[in-house]
Amino acid sequence: MSVAALQELLERFADARDWGPYHTPKNLAMALAGEAGELVAEFQWLTAEESDRVMTDPDKATAVRQEMADVFCYLLRLADVLGVDLDTAVREKIAINEHRFPAPRT
Amino acid sequence: MSVAALQELLERFADARDWGPYHTPKNLAMALAGEAGELVAEFQWLTAEESDRVMTDPDKATAVRQEMADVFCYLLRLADVLGVDLDTAVREKIAINEHRFPAPRT
Amino acid sequence: MSVAALQELLERFADARDWGPYHTPKNLAMALAGEAGELVAEFQWLTAEESDRVMTDPDKATAVRQEMADVFCYLLRLADVLGVDLDTAVREKIAINEHRFPAPRT
Amino acid sequence: MSVAALQELLERFADARDWGPYHTPKNLAMALAGEAGELVAEFQWLTAEESDRVMTDPDKATAVRQEMADVFCYLLRLADVLGVDLDTAVREKIAINEHRFPAPRT
Repeated sequence: MSVAALQELLERFADARDWGPYHTPKNLAMALAGEAGELVAEFQWLTAEESDRVMTDPDKATAVRQEMADVFCYLLRLADVLGVDLDTAVREKIAINEHRFPAPRT
Repeated sequence: MSVAALQELLERFADARDWGPYHTPKNLAMALAGEAGELVAEFQWLTAEESDRVMTDPDKATAVRQEMADVFCYLLRLADVLGVDLDTAVREKIAINEHRFPAPRT
Repeated sequence: MSVAALQELLERFADARDWGPYHTPKNLAMALAGEAGELVAEFQWLTAEESDRVMTDPDKATAVRQEMADVFCYLLRLADVLGVDLDTAVREKIAINEHRFPAPRT
Repeated sequence: MSVAALQELLERFADARDWGPYHTPKNLAMALAGEAGELVAEFQWLTAEESDRVMTDPDKATAVRQEMADVFCYLLRLADVLGVDLDTAVREKIAINEHRFPAPRT
């Protein structure tokens, strides 16, 4: 599914619940930061190697997957209320980083 | 563009730079949290109303857009290294939330 | 109680549980970020005015107070393992900010 | 210096600059989360072992120390505007954790 289509699903979900007044850019940025905190907490006591195997534990895998979905949902809502095209924004970022971090020639 | 296609662009970008050893799930979760911190910082002294108008200031708009892209890039990288299908994860989350927060009938 | 004395209480607590191997600077910074995420989440849907009155709700007050304690505990642990004198670091920061943000004369 | 004394220094600093209207609990929680994000970013690409040695690099040591001071400053400001006694809150948290994580007898 495209980023834009997911964004629209979430917009309809929020609208059906009259969440508009809560979904200010400021509040959504906070909600995203809160979910990013929960995501980082899933990894805080793991070694690098344990973090590589995190999806082999079914409970942990579900938790990580859901925290990632939560981060993404708020990012999509924020993109929606601010009118940011996330798809293009990522591709612009890649173009910027091509210059900042040139790939070694092979 | 689909979420999966963006994910692949970023995978190729990281691979071309041999960033694999740095891109452990633990490190990517930290990088995402760091970018979420920069995003929330863009809004910290704004009122709710000022946050609604944040994209009318060109410099601020660029900063917000780039922080959002940074969060998204690390989320896509994390999905890649963990084998998480972000698209499906979001739709599952919506299904869960349909039950937790039923929409009022109209 | 002094910052140094609180730091020592927490050091003894961690040592008695053999938490040393988990309390690397990297892991403690992650734990702190996780708790900061939980703290910001307490405020995410509140207006500025509601946030001013947050401590009048006993349940919310307990939650906020505990999240603040959690952030502080990990900051004190991090200071301990890195040998940072937090007290002096704050006063140096104030000195730096006296120059960056001179107070208006009265 | 006691936690309360540091808190008072920062209160006077904020008052002298009329920052009161900006220092709502909501905004201070955001600012703290933003600084926690900058702190975690200092460690994101380091191995556990590199993070143990982070203070041996003078530039990195200064950065880490300043980010820790920034987190602490906003935590102290938040404690001030909410009337939270951080010192007591930490000791209560330790008492709670004594029960949750009993130390092994020796």
